[in-house]
This record gives sequence, C-alpha cells and structure tokens, in this order.
Amino acid sequence: MHALVKPTAAPGAELREVARPRPRAREALVRVELASICGTDLHIYHWDEWARSRILPPLIFGHEFCGRVEEVGAETNFLKSGDRVSGEMHVACGQCMQCRTGDAHVCPSVRILGVDAPGCFAEYVAVPESNLWQLSDSVTPEYAAILDPLGNAVHTVMAGEVTGRSVAVIGCGPIGLMAIAVARAAGAGSIFALEPHAGRREMARTMGADYLMPASDEEIEHRIQELTPGRGVDVALEFSGSAAGVQAALRLARPGGRVSLLGLPRKPIEIDLSPLVIFKGLTIQGINGRRMYDTWYQMEQLLGRLNLNPLITHRLPLSDFAQAMQLLENGEAAKILLRP
Amino acid sequence: MHALVKPTAAPGAELREVARPRPRAREALVRVELASICGTDLHIYHWDEWARSRILPPLIFGHEFCGRVEEVGAETNFLKSGDRVSGEMHVACGQCMQCRTGDAHVCPSVRILGVDAPGCFAEYVAVPESNLWQLSDSVTPEYAAILDPLGNAVHTVMAGEVTGRSVAVIGCGPIGLMAIAVARAAGAGSIFALEPHAGRREMARTMGADYLMPASDEEIEHRIQELTPGRGVDVALEFSGSAAGVQAALRLARPGGRVSLLGLPRKPIEIDLSPLVIFKGLTIQGINGRRMYDTWYQMEQLLGRLNLNPLITHRLPLSDFAQAMQLLENGEAAKILLRP
Amino acid sequence: MHALVKPTAAPGAELREVARPRPRAREALVRVELASICGTDLHIYHWDEWARSRILPPLIFGHEFCGRVEEVGAETNFLKSGDRVSGEMHVACGQCMQCRTGDAHVCPSVRILGVDAPGCFAEYVAVPESNLWQLSDSVTPEYAAILDPLGNAVHTVMAGEVTGRSVAVIGCGPIGLMAIAVARAAGAGSIFALEPHAGRREMARTMGADYLMPASDEEIEHRIQELTPGRGVDVALEFSGSAAGVQAALRLARPGGRVSLLGLPRKPIEIDLSPLVIFKGLTIQGINGRRMYDTWYQMEQLLGRLNLNPLITHRLPLSDFAQAMQLLENGEAAKILLRP
Amino acid sequence: MHALVKPTAAPGAELREVARPRPRAREALVRVELASICGTDLHIYHWDEWARSRILPPLIFGHEFCGRVEEVGAETNFLKSGDRVSGEMHVACGQCMQCRTGDAHVCPSVRILGVDAPGCFAEYVAVPESNLWQLSDSVTPEYAAILDPLGNAVHTVMAGEVTGRSVAVIGCGPIGLMAIAVARAAGAGSIFALEPHAGRREMARTMGADYLMPASDEEIEHRIQELTPGRGVDVALEFSGSAAGVQAALRLARPGGRVSLLGLPRKPIEIDLSPLVIFKGLTIQGINGRRMYDTWYQMEQLLGRLNLNPLITHRLPLSDFAQAMQLLENGEAAKILLRP
Repeated sequence: MHALVKPTAAPGAELREVARPRPRAREALVRVELASICGTDLHIYHWDEWARSRILPPLIFGHEFCGRVEEVGAETNFLKSGDRVSGEMHVACGQCMQCRTGDAHVCPSVRILGVDAPGCFAEYVAVPESNLWQLSDSVTPEYAAILDPLGNAVHTVMAGEVTGRSVAVIGCGPIGLMAIAVARAAGAGSIFALEPHAGRREMARTMGADYLMPASDEEIEHRIQELTPGRGVDVALEFSGSAAGVQAALRLARPGGRVSLLGLPRKPIEIDLSPLVIFKGLTIQGINGRRMYDTWYQMEQLLGRLNLNPLITHRLPLSDFAQAMQLLENGEAAKILLRP
Repeated sequence: MHALVKPTAAPGAELREVARPRPRAREALVRVELASICGTDLHIYHWDEWARSRILPPLIFGHEFCGRVEEVGAETNFLKSGDRVSGEMHVACGQCMQCRTGDAHVCPSVRILGVDAPGCFAEYVAVPESNLWQLSDSVTPEYAAILDPLGNAVHTVMAGEVTGRSVAVIGCGPIGLMAIAVARAAGAGSIFALEPHAGRREMARTMGADYLMPASDEEIEHRIQELTPGRGVDVALEFSGSAAGVQAALRLARPGGRVSLLGLPRKPIEIDLSPLVIFKGLTIQGINGRRMYDTWYQMEQLLGRLNLNPLITHRLPLSDFAQAMQLLENGEAAKILLRP
Repeated sequence: MHALVKPTAAPGAELREVARPRPRAREALVRVELASICGTDLHIYHWDEWARSRILPPLIFGHEFCGRVEEVGAETNFLKSGDRVSGEMHVACGQCMQCRTGDAHVCPSVRILGVDAPGCFAEYVAVPESNLWQLSDSVTPEYAAILDPLGNAVHTVMAGEVTGRSVAVIGCGPIGLMAIAVARAAGAGSIFALEPHAGRREMARTMGADYLMPASDEEIEHRIQELTPGRGVDVALEFSGSAAGVQAALRLARPGGRVSLLGLPRKPIEIDLSPLVIFKGLTIQGINGRRMYDTWYQMEQLLGRLNLNPLITHRLPLSDFAQAMQLLENGEAAKILLRP
Repeated sequence: MHALVKPTAAPGAELREVARPRPRAREALVRVELASICGTDLHIYHWDEWARSRILPPLIFGHEFCGRVEEVGAETNFLKSGDRVSGEMHVACGQCMQCRTGDAHVCPSVRILGVDAPGCFAEYVAVPESNLWQLSDSVTPEYAAILDPLGNAVHTVMAGEVTGRSVAVIGCGPIGLMAIAVARAAGAGSIFALEPHAGRREMARTMGADYLMPASDEEIEHRIQELTPGRGVDVALEFSGSAAGVQAALRLARPGGRVSLLGLPRKPIEIDLSPLVIFKGLTIQGINGRRMYDTWYQMEQLLGRLNLNPLITHRLPLSDFAQAMQLLENGEAAKILLRP
C-alpha cells in the first residue's frame, strides 16, 4: 500500500510503497478514507526538537482519520467489515491506576499510533478495536476525519461549566476555533477570541466569537474587564502554548474562575502565582487528549449542533503532502484533508 | 395604590385600593411595570389545600415581576431611583447554615414575598435591595417579568451536565417549556418532550424539542431507548409533579444518569427504588427556587440565546385578573403578563 | 474439588465434589483461602423470590473471598502463580457506555460470579485477571476476604463529603457497621447509628458511632435535630432497605444534604417527595457495587486505618455452611469466614 | 485600652494606650482573651516589601483571636454579651458576584481586619457580627485562638478528596503542620512531609505524617514514587511558597492528581507546564482564606478529632511581643498565644 513515511532522522517525508498491516487478534484493519493533518505532524515533518526526542524512524505518521473496517482480528467483539469508523489513537495500557479509574487520557504508558507506532497517513491502518469509534450515518467523512482535534476542543471546553459563562479563547488555531464553536453551541455567554493573525480572527467570528482581539495587552484586558462586566471572564481556555497566552489566561480569569490549558509551551514559563492564582482562588486544569471515551460520547451528540465546514480549507491527495505542509506552515490553511 | 388582594380565607381575589408600602432601611420600593402569573398564584386564587395551609389573608399576592426603583431605604447600597429591576422573591434568613454556605435557595426559614408577605400584583412592591436584580438595557420588560420561572428552569437544567447529553423533559407547562429552550441553548443532544396536552407539545417543538410524546407508556419508552441509542436518556427533568411523571423519569434515565425533580407532587408517590434507583446508580436531585444568586448570573448570560416570546401568550391589565386565571385554568395560556 | 452448590430450584445447598475449573485465556484460577458469606448468599440458600427470579441451578455460589493465584490463562498480563488476591466479582461487559466512561459499576450487562456464574464457595474459582485485586503483604487474609462488602461501604460513604460532616447510618448489618468505621476513619463529625437490634447497636459503638438509637421515631429525630445542632444530618446513609429506613433517611437529612441508598427494598416505597426531597433540595444517590476500580484504590489506602476485627465473629470450615447460614439468620453473627 | 500598634512606616511595633473601639450598628465588640501571631504579622512587624505596599500606619494589627462579646451594635441579630467567639477577619463586600455565589473567600474587595483596619492585638476588637463564629463549650480558648490558620489548613486539605488518597505536604510551618493533622483525621493514606528544618519534621511526625523528608531532590522523589506505589501522590499541598516547593508539588503529583497552593511565593516562578501540568492532566487550585462559612462549619465538626496542642509552643503576655516575634523569626516556635 501507499503510505507517508518519515524515513530517517531528518526533515521531510516520503510517500512509499509498504506492506499492508495485518490486524492482530483484537485489532481491526481500517481502509483510510480521509486523513487530516495535526500540528504534531508538522513537528514530525520538520523534525524539530520534540520530534527528535520522541520519533523512531522509519514511521508512518498521522493520527486523524476516518475510514471503513476492512478486516477484523480473531478476538474482536463488535466491529465487522464495512463499518464506518474514526479512531482514538491514544492506546492506553489498560492496567495502570489511571486506566482503571476512568482517567485513561492521562495513562502514563500511553502509546500513540502515528507517533509511537504506525499511523493513518496510509491506505490502511491497524487499530485496536476498542479504540475505534463507530460512526452514525449522519456524520460526514469530513467531520469524521477531524474528531480527534474536535475532541481536544470538547474536552477543554467541557472540563467545567460554560453555559451562561463568559469565555476567553486564547489562540485561534484549528483547536481554538473548534473550541469557539463548541462553547457557542454549549450556550456560553460572551466569547472573547484573542489571536494575533487577522485571518484567524475572522474565522473566529465565523465560529461564533462575540469579540475579536489581536492580543492581550493592558488596554484589551481593561476592555474585557468592562465587558464582563467588571469581573473578568468566568473561563479562560489556552490554546496558543505561548508564555503570553498563559499569562493572559491567568490575568483574564475572574477570582474563582477556571483556566484550562491545552496549548503546549515549549519551555518553562514564569508565573506570578500569588496575585494571579492563589489570591484569586483560580482552578487551573491541564488538558490532554480526549476523555476515553466520555468526550467521544459527548462529541457525538454535539456534532449536529456545530458548523465546522469553514475550518476545512483544503482537500488534497496524500501525494500532495509537501504542499499541504507548506500551506499549514504559512498559516494559509486551517484543517487540510488528505485522500490516500 | 391598586393591588390584587386575597381578602379572606376563601376562593377568589379582589382589586383594592391599599396604602402604598414604604421601603424599610434596606429595602427598595419598586414601581411594578409588568407582573406575571405563576401556578402558585392559581392555587392561592382557588384557595386549594396548600393555600389554606400556608396563606394568611389579607395578602397581596404575585411574585413574578419587573419594574423601576421608585425610592430606596436609608441603608441601601447600590440601587437608585429609576433603576430597572426584577426580583428574587425568596427572602432567605441570612443566618442559617444553608444561607452561610451558598445554599440560600434551601434556607429553612425562607419567607416568600407574594406568599408569606405582600407581593407584586400591585402598583408598587417593597423588596430587600439584595433581592433585586439590576437589568441591563438589552433585557425586554417581557423577559424581565418572567425571570423567576425561567430561573427555575435554568436551575433544573443546569444542576448537572446537559451539553452533548440526551434530555427528557417531562411535563411541558411554562417551566418545562422554558427548560426545553434552556437545554437547547446549552447544546443538549436529543431532547424528548413528554406532555399529554397537544397544544403544549406543539409549543415544545417551537422551544426546540426533537421528539414529542404524549405520555410515557411502554411503547414510547421503548422508542426513546432505541433513539438514545439503546441506553436511556442521560438526564430526565421532571416538571409535571405527577406520580406517572416521576416514575417515567426514573425509568427513562440511563444507569448512572441524573433525574432532577422540580414539579411538586401533592401526595406521596410509590417508587420502586431497587431496580429504578439503586441498581442503576441514579442521582436524584430535588430542585427548589433559584440558586442565590448563581442562577441569576448564569441566566443573565443565557438570555440572549433564548427565544421565549412564543411562551408569552397574553398581555392584560391587572384588573382582568379573573379572565387571566380562567385562561390558565383552561390551559389556553402559557405565560400571562399583567399591567398594574 | 469441593464446592458448595445450589443443586436445584429449591431451598438448601450441598457440598459436592465437582471438576476444578480451568482458567480461560484472560482468567486466573485462584485457590480460595477464605470466603465470606453475604446476605445475597442467604437469599440463594433460602431460595427466596429474588433468588428464584435470578439463579439458574446448579450453581456454585459465593462472591466474597481471598486466595492465591494457582494458574493463569495464556493471555494474562500481570498476575503470576502464588500472587495473593481478592476479587471484584462484578464482571462488566467492557463495551457499553457505562463501562467506557468509568461507570462500570452500573454496567447494564454485568455478570456476577457467584450469582450468574460459578463463585467462590469452593476450593478454586476462575476469575478474569482484570477483576482480581493484588494484595499487599500488610493485608491479612481476614480483611482480604471481606473487601467486597467493605467496598460497598466505602463506595457509599465516599460518594460525597463526610469529613467534618454529621452522618446518620441507618441499618447496622455488616455493611452499615463497616460504613460507620469508614466514616469514623474519614473524619466524620457526629455519627448516629439507627438500628433496632441491641447487639448490633453495641457493635456500632465499637465501630465508632457517637449516638446509638433503636429506630427513627419522632422523638429520636427531634433529638438528632437538636444534636446536629438544629439542622439535621449532613449525610444519611441507608443500609436497611426498609421503607421506614428510607423515609427516616430523607427526614433526617438537612436541606441541601445527601442521602445515599445501598440497602435494597423488596418492593416499592411511598415517598413524600415535595416536603422531603424537593423543597429541601436533597441529593439522593443509588449506590451499587464498588466503583471499578476507584473504590478499590481508595479502600487499599484506608485499610490501615480501620479495625474490622470485631465484625468477624465466626470462622468455620466450608462444610459447616448450614450452621453458618443459621447463625446469620438468627442475627448471632456479623461476618462469617469459611475455609474451603 | 492597650493595643499593639504599627505606629509608622518603619520596622517594629509599640504597645500603646488607645481608645476602645465602639461597635457600629452591625458589629460586636469583643474582649480579646487570646490572640495568636501569623506570618503576616511578622511581615508587618519587620515592614517588608509586602507590608510597605499594603499597610497604612498607624494600625492595630493581628487577626487570629478568641474572646467574649462585650457589647453589640443596635442592628445585630444573634450575638449577646458574654458569648464566646472567634472571628473570620476577612470582611467581604457582600455585593460582588463572588460574595453572591458562595465564593466570598475570593471577594475582590475584601477588607482584612488587622491588615486594612484595626485588628485583635488589643484588649478589644470590633468585628461585624456576621464575621464572628460562636464557639461551643467544648472548644478550648487555645484552639479557638487559632481557628483562622486551622481554617486555612482545612480549606486546603478539603478542596478535594483526601480519604484513602496519598498526600504530600510541602512546607511544615504551622499551617502545613495543621494540614497534616487534618489529612490524618480525614483518613488520608500515606502522608509525606517535606521540610528542611529538622525540628519541624519532628513535629510533622507528631501531627501524623508517615514519611519525613528534608527536601525534594531526585532521590527523595524516586522514593516517594516507589512508596505510592509507582504512581506519585494523589494530592500535593504546597505551604512553603518557595519555587522549589511549587515545582516539587507538580512533580510529585500523579497524572490526574491535585495540587493545592496556599503558600505565597514572593515573585514569579518558572513552571514547565507541558510535562508537569498539561500532559499529566493535573488540577491546580489557588487557595485563599477560608470558605465563608463552609470551612468553619466543617472545622467545627473536625475539631474534636484533632490534637493541635503540640503546635502551641508558647504563651506570652501581649507586652512580650518583641520576644514572640524573635522566637518565630528563629524558627523556635510554632504557634504563640498572646494574652492582652
């Protein structure tokens, strides 16, 4: 089969002919219909510091996708050939305390398909049956291919109350934009989108943000304070992973408010805990992956209330991967779908 | 001033000329712009068993309203003449454990204006300043007059998660209908409305229900089970106060689900706890009033997402109270606004 | 091997020689060291209405035990021969929403070993590896044999806050008595034990109850009200399964309080929802089994703080099962350990 | 009356004769029986940077105390002369969102008696009636004088589950030591006390810590990891306010765990959010003051389970304040009680 492979410990990738995987006893083999590119894939492609520390080439990467079950292993339980599926590519160990108490999303022994093992930028991918999510007919392939990042957004937004609460979304990359749509669908009060890139701010408006701000300076924070009114936001969601973004989230949240962090800073950040966190009695949550599988159940019922089409800016054949990476690099694209 | 008074311990009411109240030190006097009729007012009007046990005539009744501050007492802090307000008419004691731990909505010494003390079916009403809710300009008088029952709905719906969760609303009187609108605005999954009265079912559709059912018999429950799919609803909200409604709520909720009870049964109900509650691990919540004042803060931010206009079926002068009571009695009206 | 079998659809049981089970691929075979008798076993023994509706003879019953792994199936992961274990005998399906969202304790397709499949009143029992709980050296066999009912108690007590909260324990059978010990170890405020049987009341004192009451009549409730002080208890835990017990729990709980129900009523109970639940804003929880496996993790760390020895009143060989059942029937025993 | 006054913007304090305060309408005047010294008082005494930015001399400082009501204002409701009381010296505004939703402990307009207005290092202090806590006879004056810092400890420990959970207490000053006692009384699993000062470590053992460690280096963290077992602690409580302490708390907490911060860092701290917080899915809570008044209700019921006597190391007349400050400065004292 064709597959996009990181062949060696160096920048770039290569479309190669490789052996089609065979599903193990509790796995299903999925024929990939559409895949989607995540920021993580860009890191792998460009071979940055994180990629160098984690990836062992050669590796088929990619972890956002949908497709149809082609074949099931001998000990599978519920899937059959032809079933439409998407997948949770975090394969948790199943035996640690976290896995056994409903917190598999923070399993310390998690293995990610497309990062630690072969992924979905290929014609076929083998995935444990319990990690495949059956799709109802109403879910389009386009949406089905981006349930992984949408699940990040749902997990972040729904980690506390948002209905009737004011929300700041800091960083309007694809997951931040999805978070705006989710918060809007969940009945948030005023939604403030903070994003330096003008095109993404425009997209934030399309997703349902009420106020668009280029960055978080003193003047803007003063204005948000006035609009909330006089309180600060009930909920601040951080997707930029920048020091400025994290600090803005902590400043913007009202005393007693919630700050949820999904964006991954590359290095330590200075935080003035006494005034920003302790005296204000904030709750800060680290958000990782998607709750297995509560986020998926919740997302399934939310899907009909979301319009994510504006986020899908490009559809390309898998062989155009280099162009796709370039478009993302330049900030000209939000989500790009690849057809293997 | 004119006021609608329950003059004696008997059915009926009387529009009378009475002395205008004078605000005490920490009260404000409000000129009532619009009032609205609650089921409780019907009980008082018809002098049913509950009314006989609670009401001490003569009493100006009514507890849903909006208006403008006319005059403030000497020790008030933030209101001034001309301010637009609505009111929380549950006056909690402020000294019990519940009041001192954020649970004033279940204060055992609560006094309700319009039930235990003079209410708002009058040209003026005196209310403790801390129980008056300042209205922003964007809130119309029509909505402002029904924040009390809307708050009941918000309190019930938001007593647990509803975003991306399936919801059954049992009993589509005004509060049940508002709950449908709130659940819709909060991003609920499928909403099932159960209501025997065809006109109210139609209104339930307008408010955003996905499925309309006349009652909860075996066939209907089977259909809900199929639609959820195969699970039962995540959340069942009971507004009918009937034995059949409560039992349906417990049957419809999935194992691990939530049942919130606002409708007030008139007598004890038989509940088969082992199969319906204990083995299923249900959580049942009694819901009373509105959280003071968290429900109000949340409602304020939700208001812009709700279309409640279809619920306001009649606007009448206060002097037409007898006709208004008749319309409600006959089920021809949802919310009726009265102009003093 | 020897095993205690319910041979036919009739009262009684029989110690029989049966084939030793062979562990399937993901099971381990455990050599039973000590088993313990549950109320459920009494129902099976006496062949009451519930037993007739659920049990398919012939069946090896019993589901409380500890032992050592004798042999493991081919696809097990972490256990090895000689490991000391106890077991969670609720075998959840692993595929339903509840199982996939951390709520396996209310899996609608649960199969209970000792009820729906062969149990532990035998020399050997085969159990899925993931249902076996490895014991640290510090846990005595006596405690290890009763982790199932202790887990019921921990689940019930810890379903909400008890530290610094007043607690009523209604019904002082073995699980109620364990709940008293757990609440005491968890730093509860005043603990009120309600139990008609004088001997059990005495045991309740040993477990740490502060006040002992024979039943819940008006006078006693008045006294509890005074002692709480003037409020009612923060938490009421129901273990009797009687109508009187459930109603007392609802009356005793303060407005805003918690009522957790573990005792299983045999038939529907009349509940006066308006005054007892709705106006008081109570939260009622149905409690089933043990959270898998959060209750087990919590219990493991609590064990060192509990003295449960007084509850273990008898140690008998498995062959004396008839005497054991008689002792329990007469209320002369709390927990009886059986040696196969 | 005699009072300890910070007379001018400079280090030191002075015992002065000042006018006895007169209670305002809703205040009570309390005759101080015992006061206790907090770290905040040391800051004021030594006139450090924080003190210079916040305190306006002349000021009677001190905010931990107990006493008897001497006289009540005209509009008080429940106190009468002779009542034994302690006090919550955070006087919240009562009108902001936080105050009106049960979060008065993070009121942005709070005024602290002893910091922003006259405090309790005096023969008499005037306090709003609603901030005074009536003491039951069973509470000794020694305990009653330290309910403010004990409330900090209770608030921190009880901000999440600790029963059956492993706990690290970082920093064993008086509040950290109290937290150990509270966690022990609440049924925590293993308690790890991290504290460089040997004498305080010894006190940590007396309070109930299971493991004593001088600091958080790699070896010690490795040992805690082994003892938890292999997981990290469920709960990390930070009382040192040091960068090393905060970072240790984040490292020690297991994935999915809780970190509660009470210690106040003097300056920004570098935090490596990606590995320590986000991937681990931690929850971090800023803890300020005591929940009004839920912490007080909970503390009242916990008091009988705590032995805090070892923490009260000195009892001195108020006139020996300089010696008291010196003892604290040298780390020779835990809590010092002053008799005015």
